Amino acid sequence: MRQDDQLLSPRQKQARQTRKELLEAGLDVFLENGFQKSTISQIIKKANKGYGTAYVYFQNKDELLIELMEHVMNRFYDVAELPFQPETKQEAYERIEHQVRLFLKLAVQEREMLKVMKEAIGLSEAVKEKWVEIRERFIRRITEDITYSQHKGLAKSALDAAYIARAWFYANEMFMWDLVENEDLSLDHAAHHLTMLYTGGLYE
Amino acid sequence: MRQDDQLLSPRQKQARQTRKELLEAGLDVFLENGFQKSTISQIIKKANKGYGTAYVYFQNKDELLIELMEHVMNRFYDVAELPFQPETKQEAYERIEHQVRLFLKLAVQEREMLKVMKEAIGLSEAVKEKWVEIRERFIRRITEDITYSQHKGLAKSALDAAYIARAWFYANEMFMWDLVENEDLSLDHAAHHLTMLYTGGLYE
Repeated sequence: MRQDDQLLSPRQKQARQTRKELLEAGLDVFLENGFQKSTISQIIKKANKGYGTAYVYFQNKDELLIELMEHVMNRFYDVAELPFQPETKQEAYERIEHQVRLFLKLAVQEREMLKVMKEAIGLSEAVKEKWVEIRERFIRRITEDITYSQHKGLAKSALDAAYIARAWFYANEMFMWDLVENEDLSLDHAAHHLTMLYTGGLYE
Repeated sequence: MRQDDQLLSPRQKQARQTRKELLEAGLDVFLENGFQKSTISQIIKKANKGYGTAYVYFQNKDELLIELMEHVMNRFYDVAELPFQPETKQEAYERIEHQVRLFLKLAVQEREMLKVMKEAIGLSEAVKEKWVEIRERFIRRITEDITYSQHKGLAKSALDAAYIARAWFYANEMFMWDLVENEDLSLDHAAHHLTMLYTGGLYE
Protein backbone atom coordinates (compact mmCIF):
# COMPACT_ATOMS: atom_id res chain seq x y z
CA MET A 1 0.00 0.00 0.00
CA ARG A 2 2.68 2.49 1.07
CA GLN A 3 4.73 4.12 -1.67
CA ASP A 4 8.45 3.70 -1.39
CA ASP A 5 9.88 6.72 0.44
CA GLN A 6 12.74 6.84 -2.08
CA LEU A 7 10.32 7.84 -4.82
CA LEU A 8 8.89 10.81 -2.97
CA SER A 9 9.92 14.40 -3.62
CA PRO A 10 11.09 16.38 -0.56
CA ARG A 11 7.73 18.14 -0.64
CA GLN A 12 5.83 14.85 -0.55
CA LYS A 13 8.03 13.59 2.28
CA GLN A 14 7.27 16.75 4.21
CA ALA A 15 3.53 16.31 3.62
CA ARG A 16 3.65 12.73 4.84
CA GLN A 17 5.57 13.79 7.93
CA THR A 18 3.07 16.56 8.75
CA ARG A 19 0.15 14.19 8.35
CA LYS A 20 1.85 11.65 10.62
CA GLU A 21 2.51 14.25 13.30
CA LEU A 22 -1.09 15.45 13.21
CA LEU A 23 -2.33 11.85 13.57
CA GLU A 24 0.00 11.20 16.49
CA ALA A 25 -1.08 14.39 18.22
CA GLY A 26 -4.73 13.47 17.54
CA LEU A 27 -4.26 10.05 19.08
CA ASP A 28 -2.73 11.60 22.22
CA VAL A 29 -5.49 14.19 22.55
CA PHE A 30 -8.32 11.70 21.95
CA LEU A 31 -6.88 9.18 24.41
CA GLU A 32 -6.51 11.88 27.02
CA ASN A 33 -9.84 13.70 26.62
CA GLY A 34 -12.16 11.35 24.79
CA PHE A 35 -13.83 12.36 21.53
CA GLN A 36 -16.43 14.89 22.65
CA LYS A 37 -14.05 17.04 24.70
CA SER A 38 -11.28 17.03 22.08
CA THR A 39 -11.02 19.85 19.56
CA ILE A 40 -9.15 20.10 16.30
CA SER A 41 -7.43 23.23 17.67
CA GLN A 42 -5.97 21.29 20.60
CA ILE A 43 -4.64 18.72 18.16
CA ILE A 44 -3.10 21.30 15.81
CA LYS A 45 -1.49 23.05 18.77
CA LYS A 46 -0.13 19.79 20.18
CA ALA A 47 1.35 18.90 16.76
CA ASN A 48 2.86 22.38 16.66
CA LYS A 49 1.47 23.15 13.19
CA GLY A 50 -0.12 26.22 11.67
CA TYR A 51 -3.89 26.18 11.29
CA GLY A 52 -3.77 26.79 7.55
CA THR A 53 -1.38 23.87 7.07
CA ALA A 54 -3.31 21.51 9.31
CA TYR A 55 -6.65 22.12 7.64
CA VAL A 56 -5.18 20.94 4.33
CA TYR A 57 -4.93 17.49 5.91
CA PHE A 58 -7.95 17.31 8.19
CA GLN A 59 -11.03 19.51 8.06
CA ASN A 60 -12.21 18.48 11.53
CA LYS A 61 -11.61 16.05 14.36
CA ASP A 62 -14.05 13.54 12.84
CA GLU A 63 -11.87 13.14 9.74
CA LEU A 64 -8.79 12.71 11.86
CA LEU A 65 -10.42 10.11 14.07
CA ILE A 66 -11.67 8.23 11.03
CA GLU A 67 -8.12 7.88 9.77
CA LEU A 68 -6.91 6.67 13.18
CA MET A 69 -9.83 4.23 13.25
CA GLU A 70 -8.79 2.81 9.86
CA HIS A 71 -5.27 2.24 11.15
CA VAL A 72 -6.50 0.38 14.24
CA MET A 73 -9.11 -1.62 12.37
CA ASN A 74 -6.56 -2.74 9.79
CA ARG A 75 -4.91 -4.72 12.58
CA PHE A 76 -8.24 -6.44 13.25
CA TYR A 77 -8.74 -6.96 9.57
CA ASP A 78 -5.38 -8.76 9.33
CA VAL A 79 -6.85 -11.32 11.74
CA ALA A 80 -10.02 -11.68 9.68
CA GLU A 81 -7.85 -12.26 6.62
CA LEU A 82 -5.80 -15.13 8.05
CA PRO A 83 -5.83 -18.05 5.60
CA PHE A 84 -8.94 -20.16 6.10
CA GLN A 85 -8.99 -23.47 4.23
CA PRO A 86 -10.12 -26.09 6.73
CA GLU A 87 -10.40 -29.72 5.65
CA THR A 88 -12.54 -30.89 8.58
CA LYS A 89 -15.10 -29.46 10.99
CA GLN A 90 -12.56 -29.85 13.79
CA GLU A 91 -9.95 -27.88 11.85
CA ALA A 92 -12.53 -25.18 11.10
CA TYR A 93 -13.39 -25.02 14.79
CA GLU A 94 -9.74 -24.60 15.78
CA ARG A 95 -8.98 -21.91 13.23
CA ILE A 96 -12.10 -19.98 14.05
CA GLU A 97 -11.49 -20.09 17.79
CA HIS A 98 -7.92 -18.94 17.16
CA GLN A 99 -9.18 -16.01 15.07
CA VAL A 100 -11.80 -14.99 17.63
CA ARG A 101 -9.23 -15.08 20.38
CA LEU A 102 -6.79 -12.90 18.41
CA PHE A 103 -9.61 -10.51 17.52
CA LEU A 104 -10.74 -10.11 21.13
CA LYS A 105 -7.14 -9.85 22.38
CA LEU A 106 -6.54 -6.99 19.99
CA ALA A 107 -9.66 -5.30 21.36
CA VAL A 108 -8.24 -5.52 24.88
CA GLN A 109 -4.84 -4.23 23.71
CA GLU A 110 -6.53 -1.32 21.96
CA ARG A 111 -9.05 -0.80 24.75
CA GLU A 112 -8.50 2.95 25.17
CA MET A 113 -8.73 3.69 21.47
CA LEU A 114 -11.83 1.52 21.12
CA LYS A 115 -13.50 3.45 23.94
CA VAL A 116 -12.87 6.66 22.01
CA MET A 117 -14.24 5.05 18.84
CA LYS A 118 -17.36 3.84 20.62
CA GLU A 119 -18.00 7.32 21.99
CA ALA A 120 -17.43 8.90 18.57
CA ILE A 121 -19.73 6.43 16.80
CA GLY A 122 -22.53 7.64 19.08
CA LEU A 123 -21.74 11.31 18.50
CA SER A 124 -20.64 11.74 14.89
CA GLU A 125 -22.62 10.73 11.83
CA ALA A 126 -19.41 10.55 9.75
CA VAL A 127 -17.69 8.26 12.24
CA LYS A 128 -20.80 6.09 12.47
CA GLU A 129 -20.87 5.75 8.67
CA LYS A 130 -17.23 4.76 8.67
CA TRP A 131 -17.92 2.13 11.30
CA VAL A 132 -20.75 0.68 9.21
CA GLU A 133 -18.36 0.55 6.23
CA ILE A 134 -15.68 -1.24 8.29
CA ARG A 135 -18.27 -3.69 9.61
CA GLU A 136 -19.52 -4.50 6.09
CA ARG A 137 -15.95 -5.21 5.03
CA PHE A 138 -15.62 -7.77 7.82
CA ILE A 139 -18.98 -9.31 6.97
CA ARG A 140 -17.96 -9.70 3.31
CA ARG A 141 -14.73 -11.42 4.33
CA ILE A 142 -16.56 -13.81 6.65
CA THR A 143 -19.10 -14.53 3.91
CA GLU A 144 -16.23 -15.70 1.70
CA ASP A 145 -14.97 -18.07 4.39
CA ILE A 146 -18.43 -19.52 4.90
CA THR A 147 -18.89 -19.99 1.14
CA TYR A 148 -15.55 -21.82 1.03
CA SER A 149 -16.67 -24.20 3.78
CA GLN A 150 -19.99 -24.73 2.04
CA HIS A 151 -18.24 -25.67 -1.21
CA LYS A 152 -16.05 -28.07 0.74
CA GLY A 153 -19.21 -29.73 2.04
CA LEU A 154 -18.26 -28.82 5.62
CA ALA A 155 -20.84 -26.10 6.26
CA LYS A 156 -24.60 -26.42 5.75
CA SER A 157 -25.23 -25.34 2.19
CA ALA A 158 -28.89 -24.45 2.82
CA LEU A 159 -27.82 -21.43 4.89
CA ASP A 160 -27.41 -17.99 3.36
CA ALA A 161 -23.72 -17.22 3.95
CA ALA A 162 -24.26 -13.45 4.06
CA TYR A 163 -26.89 -13.65 6.83
CA ILE A 164 -24.87 -16.10 8.90
CA ALA A 165 -21.78 -13.91 8.47
CA ARG A 166 -23.76 -10.91 9.70
CA ALA A 167 -25.10 -12.69 12.80
CA TRP A 168 -21.62 -13.99 13.55
CA PHE A 169 -19.88 -10.65 13.18
CA TYR A 170 -22.51 -8.96 15.35
CA ALA A 171 -21.99 -11.40 18.20
CA ASN A 172 -18.20 -10.87 17.97
CA GLU A 173 -18.50 -7.12 17.69
CA MET A 174 -20.69 -6.89 20.78
CA PHE A 175 -18.36 -9.07 22.84
CA MET A 176 -15.54 -6.84 21.62
CA TRP A 177 -17.28 -3.71 22.98
CA ASP A 178 -18.09 -5.59 26.16
CA LEU A 179 -14.49 -6.60 26.75
CA VAL A 180 -13.42 -3.02 26.17
CA GLU A 181 -15.71 -1.71 28.90
CA ASN A 182 -15.94 -4.65 31.27
CA GLU A 183 -12.70 -6.07 32.60
CA ASP A 184 -14.45 -8.94 34.40
CA LEU A 185 -15.54 -10.78 31.28
CA SER A 186 -13.38 -13.79 30.39
CA LEU A 187 -11.88 -13.46 26.92
CA ASP A 188 -11.07 -17.16 26.56
CA HIS A 189 -14.50 -18.19 27.77
CA ALA A 190 -16.14 -15.76 25.33
CA ALA A 191 -14.00 -16.97 22.40
CA HIS A 192 -14.82 -20.60 23.19
CA HIS A 193 -18.57 -20.09 23.48
CA LEU A 194 -18.85 -17.86 20.43
CA THR A 195 -17.00 -20.48 18.40
CA MET A 196 -19.01 -23.42 19.77
CA LEU A 197 -22.29 -21.73 18.93
CA TYR A 198 -21.14 -20.69 15.48
CA THR A 199 -19.46 -23.87 14.30
CA GLY A 200 -22.15 -26.03 15.92
CA GLY A 201 -24.84 -24.12 14.06
CA LEU A 202 -23.09 -23.67 10.74
CA TYR A 203 -21.09 -26.86 10.21
CA GLU A 204 -22.46 -30.28 9.28
CA MET B 1 -48.31 -3.62 38.53
CA ARG B 2 -50.94 -0.91 38.18
CA GLN B 3 -52.93 0.04 41.26
CA ASP B 4 -56.65 -0.13 40.91
CA ASP B 5 -57.91 3.31 39.93
CA GLN B 6 -60.76 2.96 42.45
CA LEU B 7 -58.28 3.08 45.30
CA LEU B 8 -56.67 6.33 44.24
CA SER B 9 -57.47 9.65 45.83
CA PRO B 10 -58.50 12.45 43.45
CA ARG B 11 -55.06 13.91 43.96
CA GLN B 12 -53.36 10.66 42.95
CA LYS B 13 -55.63 10.35 39.92
CA GLN B 14 -54.64 13.86 38.90
CA ALA B 15 -50.96 13.04 39.31
CA ARG B 16 -51.29 9.94 37.17
CA GLN B 17 -53.11 11.91 34.51
CA THR B 18 -50.45 14.66 34.45
CA ARG B 19 -47.68 12.09 34.14
CA LYS B 20 -49.52 10.38 31.29
CA GLU B 21 -50.01 13.65 29.41
CA LEU B 22 -46.34 14.54 29.79
CA LEU B 23 -45.33 11.14 28.46
CA GLU B 24 -47.68 11.44 25.49
CA ALA B 25 -46.39 14.91 24.69
CA GLY B 26 -42.82 13.61 25.06
CA LEU B 27 -43.47 10.78 22.63
CA ASP B 28 -44.89 13.23 20.06
CA VAL B 29 -41.99 15.63 20.41
CA PHE B 30 -39.32 12.92 20.27
CA LEU B 31 -40.89 11.25 17.24
CA GLU B 32 -41.07 14.58 15.47
CA ASN B 33 -37.65 16.02 16.31
CA GLY B 34 -35.48 13.12 17.40
CA PHE B 35 -33.77 13.10 20.79
CA GLN B 36 -31.02 15.68 20.38
CA LYS B 37 -33.25 18.43 19.02
CA SER B 38 -36.03 17.89 21.55
CA THR B 39 -36.13 19.92 24.76
CA ILE B 40 -38.01 19.37 27.99
CA SER B 41 -39.52 22.88 27.55
CA GLN B 42 -41.08 21.89 24.21
CA ILE B 43 -42.57 18.84 25.89
CA ILE B 44 -43.97 20.77 28.86
CA LYS B 45 -45.45 23.35 26.52
CA LYS B 46 -46.99 20.69 24.30
CA ALA B 47 -48.55 18.99 27.36
CA ASN B 48 -49.85 22.39 28.44
CA LYS B 49 -48.43 22.09 31.95
CA GLY B 50 -46.68 24.53 34.23
CA TYR B 51 -42.91 24.16 34.54
CA GLY B 52 -43.02 23.72 38.31
CA THR B 53 -45.58 20.94 37.98
CA ALA B 54 -43.79 19.16 35.16
CA TYR B 55 -40.42 19.10 36.91
CA VAL B 56 -41.99 17.16 39.77
CA TYR B 57 -42.43 14.28 37.32
CA PHE B 58 -39.41 14.55 35.03
CA GLN B 59 -36.20 16.46 35.72
CA ASN B 60 -35.08 16.34 32.11
CA LYS B 61 -35.79 14.81 28.72
CA ASP B 62 -33.52 11.85 29.47
CA GLU B 63 -35.74 10.75 32.36
CA LEU B 64 -38.83 11.11 30.24
CA LEU B 65 -37.35 9.11 27.38
CA ILE B 66 -36.22 6.39 29.78
CA GLU B 67 -39.81 5.93 30.93
CA LEU B 68 -41.07 5.77 27.34
CA MET B 69 -38.31 3.28 26.57
CA GLU B 70 -39.45 1.05 29.45
CA HIS B 71 -42.99 1.07 28.08
CA VAL B 72 -41.84 0.05 24.60
CA MET B 73 -39.38 -2.55 25.81
CA ASN B 74 -42.03 -4.17 28.01
CA ARG B 75 -43.77 -5.20 24.81
CA PHE B 76 -40.54 -6.87 23.65
CA TYR B 77 -40.11 -8.42 27.05
CA ASP B 78 -43.56 -9.99 26.81
CA VAL B 79 -42.25 -11.88 23.77
CA ALA B 80 -39.12 -12.98 25.63
CA GLU B 81 -41.35 -14.25 28.45
CA LEU B 82 -43.56 -16.48 26.30
CA PRO B 83 -43.73 -19.97 27.85
CA PHE B 84 -40.76 -22.05 26.76
CA GLN B 85 -40.93 -25.74 27.65
CA PRO B 86 -39.95 -27.63 24.51
CA GLU B 87 -39.90 -31.42 24.55
CA THR B 88 -37.82 -31.87 21.39
CA LYS B 89 -35.16 -30.01 19.45
CA GLN B 90 -37.68 -29.45 16.66
CA GLU B 91 -40.18 -27.93 19.08
CA ALA B 92 -37.46 -25.70 20.52
CA TYR B 93 -36.54 -24.60 17.03
CA GLU B 94 -40.16 -23.69 16.22
CA ARG B 95 -40.76 -21.77 19.41
CA ILE B 96 -37.51 -19.87 19.13
CA GLU B 97 -38.11 -18.93 15.50
CA HIS B 98 -41.61 -17.77 16.46
CA GLN B 99 -40.18 -15.61 19.26
CA VAL B 100 -37.48 -14.10 17.07
CA ARG B 101 -40.05 -13.28 14.41
CA LEU B 102 -42.35 -11.57 16.92
CA PHE B 103 -39.40 -9.70 18.41
CA LEU B 104 -38.21 -8.40 15.04
CA LYS B 105 -41.77 -7.58 13.94
CA LEU B 106 -42.22 -5.45 17.04
CA ALA B 107 -39.01 -3.64 16.15
CA VAL B 108 -40.40 -2.82 12.73
CA GLN B 109 -43.72 -1.68 14.24
CA GLU B 110 -41.87 0.53 16.70
CA ARG B 111 -39.31 1.64 14.14
CA GLU B 112 -39.63 5.38 14.76
CA MET B 113 -39.37 5.07 18.53
CA LEU B 114 -36.42 2.71 18.24
CA LYS B 115 -34.62 5.23 16.04
CA VAL B 116 -35.07 7.82 18.77
CA MET B 117 -33.82 5.33 21.37
CA LYS B 118 -30.75 4.46 19.29
CA GLU B 119 -29.92 8.13 18.91
CA ALA B 120 -30.41 8.75 22.64
CA ILE B 121 -28.26 5.76 23.65
CA GLY B 122 -25.38 7.38 21.75
CA LEU B 123 -25.95 10.79 23.33
CA SER B 124 -27.05 10.28 26.92
CA GLU B 125 -25.14 8.34 29.57
CA ALA B 126 -28.37 7.80 31.56
CA VAL B 127 -30.22 6.38 28.55
CA LYS B 128 -27.25 4.17 27.71
CA GLU B 129 -27.21 2.80 31.27
CA LYS B 130 -30.91 2.08 31.03
CA TRP B 131 -30.36 0.23 27.77
CA VAL B 132 -27.65 -1.92 29.37
CA GLU B 133 -30.06 -2.70 32.22
CA ILE B 134 -32.83 -3.69 29.78
CA ARG B 135 -30.39 -5.85 27.81
CA GLU B 136 -29.22 -7.65 30.96
CA ARG B 137 -32.84 -8.40 31.82
CA PHE B 138 -33.31 -10.09 28.43
CA ILE B 139 -30.06 -12.02 28.81
CA ARG B 140 -31.12 -13.31 32.23
CA ARG B 141 -34.44 -14.48 30.80
CA ILE B 142 -32.75 -16.26 27.89
CA THR B 143 -30.27 -17.86 30.32
CA GLU B 144 -33.24 -19.40 32.15
CA ASP B 145 -34.63 -20.87 28.91
CA ILE B 146 -31.25 -22.34 28.01
CA THR B 147 -30.85 -23.84 31.47
CA TYR B 148 -34.30 -25.41 31.11
CA SER B 149 -33.32 -27.03 27.80
CA GLN B 150 -30.03 -28.23 29.30
CA HIS B 151 -31.87 -29.90 32.19
CA LYS B 152 -34.19 -31.55 29.67
CA GLY B 153 -31.13 -32.99 27.92
CA LEU B 154 -31.99 -31.05 24.76
CA ALA B 155 -29.25 -28.43 24.85
CA LYS B 156 -25.53 -29.11 25.23
CA SER B 157 -24.86 -29.08 28.94
CA ALA B 158 -21.14 -28.27 28.54
CA LEU B 159 -22.01 -24.76 27.39
CA ASP B 160 -22.20 -21.84 29.81
CA ALA B 161 -25.85 -20.71 29.48
CA ALA B 162 -25.07 -17.10 30.42
CA TYR B 163 -22.44 -16.71 27.68
CA ILE B 164 -24.59 -18.37 25.04
CA ALA B 165 -27.54 -16.18 26.07
CA ARG B 166 -25.37 -13.08 25.69
CA ALA B 167 -24.11 -14.04 22.21
CA TRP B 168 -27.66 -14.87 21.17
CA PHE B 169 -29.20 -11.65 22.44
CA TYR B 170 -26.44 -9.59 20.81
CA ALA B 171 -27.10 -11.11 17.40
CA ASN B 172 -30.84 -10.45 17.80
CA GLU B 173 -30.31 -6.93 19.09
CA MET B 174 -28.08 -6.00 16.17
CA PHE B 175 -30.53 -7.39 13.61
CA MET B 176 -33.21 -5.41 15.41
CA TRP B 177 -31.28 -2.14 14.96
CA ASP B 178 -30.56 -3.13 11.38
CA LEU B 179 -34.21 -3.71 10.57
CA VAL B 180 -35.07 -0.36 12.12
CA GLU B 181 -32.69 1.50 9.83
CA ASN B 182 -32.62 -0.68 6.74
CA GLU B 183 -35.92 -1.49 5.11
CA ASP B 184 -34.34 -3.85 2.55
CA LEU B 185 -33.39 -6.53 5.04
CA SER B 186 -35.72 -9.54 5.10
CA LEU B 187 -37.23 -10.07 8.55
CA ASP B 188 -38.26 -13.69 7.88
CA HIS B 189 -34.90 -14.55 6.41
CA ALA B 190 -33.13 -12.99 9.39
CA ALA B 191 -35.37 -14.82 11.90
CA HIS B 192 -34.78 -18.14 10.13
CA HIS B 193 -30.99 -17.80 9.97
CA LEU B 194 -30.61 -16.52 13.50
CA THR B 195 -32.63 -19.47 14.75
CA MET B 196 -30.80 -22.04 12.61
CA LEU B 197 -27.42 -20.86 13.85
CA TYR B 198 -28.54 -20.73 17.46
CA THR B 199 -30.42 -24.00 17.74
CA GLY B 200 -27.86 -25.78 15.56
CA GLY B 201 -25.07 -24.63 17.86
CA LEU B 202 -26.81 -25.01 21.19
CA TYR B 203 -29.01 -28.08 20.85
CA GLU B 204 -27.86 -31.69 20.80
